[in-house]
Amino acid sequence: MYKCNSSRLQESIERFSKFGATTNSGVTRLSLSKEDILARDYFCECCKELGMEIKVDDMANIYAILPGKNDVPPIVMGSHLDSVEKGGKFDGVLGVLTAIEAIRTLKENDIELDIPLMIVNFTNEEGARFDPAMMSSGVISGKFEKDKMLQSVDKNDITFKAALQASGYKGKEENRLKEALAYIELHIEQGPVLEAKQLEIGVVEGVLGMVCYEVNITGESNHAGTTPMSMRKDPMIVASKIIANLHEQLGSIDEQLVYTFGRMNVTPNIHTVIPNKVAFTIDSRHQDPEVMRKVEEILQGLPSQEQGCYVVPVKLWGRDTVFFDSAICDEVEKSCHGFGYSFNRMFSGAGHDAQYIASIIPSAMIFVPSINGKSHCEEEETTFEDCAKGADVLLETVLTLQTKFSIGKTSFISN
Amino acid sequence: MYKCNSSRLQESIERFSKFGATTNSGVTRLSLSKEDILARDYFCECCKELGMEIKVDDMANIYAILPGKNDVPPIVMGSHLDSVEKGGKFDGVLGVLTAIEAIRTLKENDIELDIPLMIVNFTNEEGARFDPAMMSSGVISGKFEKDKMLQSVDKNDITFKAALQASGYKGKEENRLKEALAYIELHIEQGPVLEAKQLEIGVVEGVLGMVCYEVNITGESNHAGTTPMSMRKDPMIVASKIIANLHEQLGSIDEQLVYTFGRMNVTPNIHTVIPNKVAFTIDSRHQDPEVMRKVEEILQGLPSQEQGCYVVPVKLWGRDTVFFDSAICDEVEKSCHGFGYSFNRMFSGAGHDAQYIASIIPSAMIFVPSINGKSHCEEEETTFEDCAKGADVLLETVLTLQTKFSIGKTSFISN
Repeated sequence: MYKCNSSRLQESIERFSKFGATTNSGVTRLSLSKEDILARDYFCECCKELGMEIKVDDMANIYAILPGKNDVPPIVMGSHLDSVEKGGKFDGVLGVLTAIEAIRTLKENDIELDIPLMIVNFTNEEGARFDPAMMSSGVISGKFEKDKMLQSVDKNDITFKAALQASGYKGKEENRLKEALAYIELHIEQGPVLEAKQLEIGVVEGVLGMVCYEVNITGESNHAGTTPMSMRKDPMIVASKIIANLHEQLGSIDEQLVYTFGRMNVTPNIHTVIPNKVAFTIDSRHQDPEVMRKVEEILQGLPSQEQGCYVVPVKLWGRDTVFFDSAICDEVEKSCHGFGYSFNRMFSGAGHDAQYIASIIPSAMIFVPSINGKSHCEEEETTFEDCAKGADVLLETVLTLQTKFSIGKTSFISN
Repeated sequence: MYKCNSSRLQESIERFSKFGATTNSGVTRLSLSKEDILARDYFCECCKELGMEIKVDDMANIYAILPGKNDVPPIVMGSHLDSVEKGGKFDGVLGVLTAIEAIRTLKENDIELDIPLMIVNFTNEEGARFDPAMMSSGVISGKFEKDKMLQSVDKNDITFKAALQASGYKGKEENRLKEALAYIELHIEQGPVLEAKQLEIGVVEGVLGMVCYEVNITGESNHAGTTPMSMRKDPMIVASKIIANLHEQLGSIDEQLVYTFGRMNVTPNIHTVIPNKVAFTIDSRHQDPEVMRKVEEILQGLPSQEQGCYVVPVKLWGRDTVFFDSAICDEVEKSCHGFGYSFNRMFSGAGHDAQYIASIIPSAMIFVPSINGKSHCEEEETTFEDCAKGADVLLETVLTLQTKFSIGKTSFISN
């Protein structure tokens, strides 16, 4: 078993964190921004130094390929280099840098593989500059229409199309990732579970199904001082009761169910005026479709009228649970055993490129702990030690898979 | 008993509604704006035509005086000509125009009074351009410091001081209203009670005491998908429970108590992020200080911690109930009886200049019905018939008071 070089990985993380560094140790590296392009350039430079060949597709996804002895589809590692505004220096980039570190470790140990390895950097995973998130993994796996994506605009009204043209990273459609033996994405957990359980590795079995509803409650605005309580149609009081009731109902379904009332907009939002409209979102996630069905049943079963107000739940979107390849998950787990790293089989509550790629390539993910569960903020943190353990598991899993593939056991992929 | 001229009053209302008319039959006549100044000019013109003398004080309050046979303090009527943005054509201006109509009716009936009458237009009652509301009645009755008021800025960073200078209506401090026998302000109800009870006149006994609190709840932001429910500190769930509980507790104190959760700000207000802060206001009003004490006890007794969140109620402001002069109220009631107009003795839930003036001059108010209880919006409406009935009661009350005062019964004022 090969261990990665922890201090080299740390240097690499620190080096990349300079592309878009913020004053509070974070990173702003919006997709196809100047900072993202500098990071891409340096990524390509690192890969070329390792003897890898660079290809770019029409969505600016970058593929670095290390040839194997046999001309077969590769095993793919990677993630994304873009970040949210004032994000952290681990989200996304760590999946790319642990992949580079894995290949550096192979190189310094003079290991030549039968099967090609590939590192991918997916464009605009965060969706922070151009909506939607996971745009380019979505396009190449047929989830999004490319033409619509090209029209997506950032806050300065620059289209994704224009940013793509200007980036120097617009390649050919024929270069898109189509076939591979496996895709393994290492990522920070972005949640508090591993840290709380004092575990080192998350073996990620899939991405939770989710629904997002907006509940619109319409009442009637009136003067706060002159309208008797009995003559009011107050959507704020109705909203509060609904949220309190939903919390009670949803809380009793399953302890692994999560639900969040993240956004509430009150109109007109003036202290001396009874609101005429309150709209709040509820985002709910669980791996079991049956549980998600119950959640939707509860939301759709909200009374349409309540205390004179109209209650209209609108489904904003939803996704089914994505199950990763269980055979790859088993290999990740075995790698943990091999190193003696403690682990947890778990689902991801957050979305990742792997959830789209899983529909075209057998996929899995590896999580490393997030300190205080923080992500998408400058306080996002993972110890370099934990990052290196993740790289160890990534490399070991790739090595085991390539051995199995090269001796012809390709059928073990269960997806 | 003299009845006012309903169609003349209607013309007058319609004429004034052109100063700042909006496209949807409303009015935007912010204090000391171009539109307000045109309305002021025309108000002065109307009063001069009636043989009234115009005085202006240092806060641009306008006083039109109709001399009486005796040189004694006047009986004062009036209100304000300014409006909120996209307000209605009755709020404030109706108190001024019914006063003009009352004097026109006296004039056409060749009635000369022993006691002077005065019509006042108070500057910046709405507080819509310059904070606070009831600014100038507040200054002349010692509630606000003039120097602070002069520094109040509108949204274009123009100070009240500069607007005052530019208006042409900056007069002398010595002209301030200091002494009067009575102040009677006619106003639209701005609530639904008179209409619901099918009553024509509100005999306003005072202005409700109120408190306004902001309840600040601080939790911890985390990813909506990755944070188990048991590890959350979610201020939105806490806020909803608190509002639902407050609604239950406050609702059982007294049926005349009103309370409004009008404003709620959620941070960061993103559907995929557990909020870290929820702040909501509660505005509560009742005439009985004991009831208001109970309300504050409940608010101050909120638990300081709840489900891992910190709960901090902050008192933004409050006012004690203002009781109007009961003898003047009785005269208003008698006038209603005289005309056979149905009425309700009631408190105002909204603030008015009269609540400040009451501390220096015996005061009362007359309400006319608001259709659907609407005000501060373009849909604000009162029938011209109801306006005229209000003017009848106003004039009759003034006539009765002047008779009583002129035969020396000034001691009947109980305030």
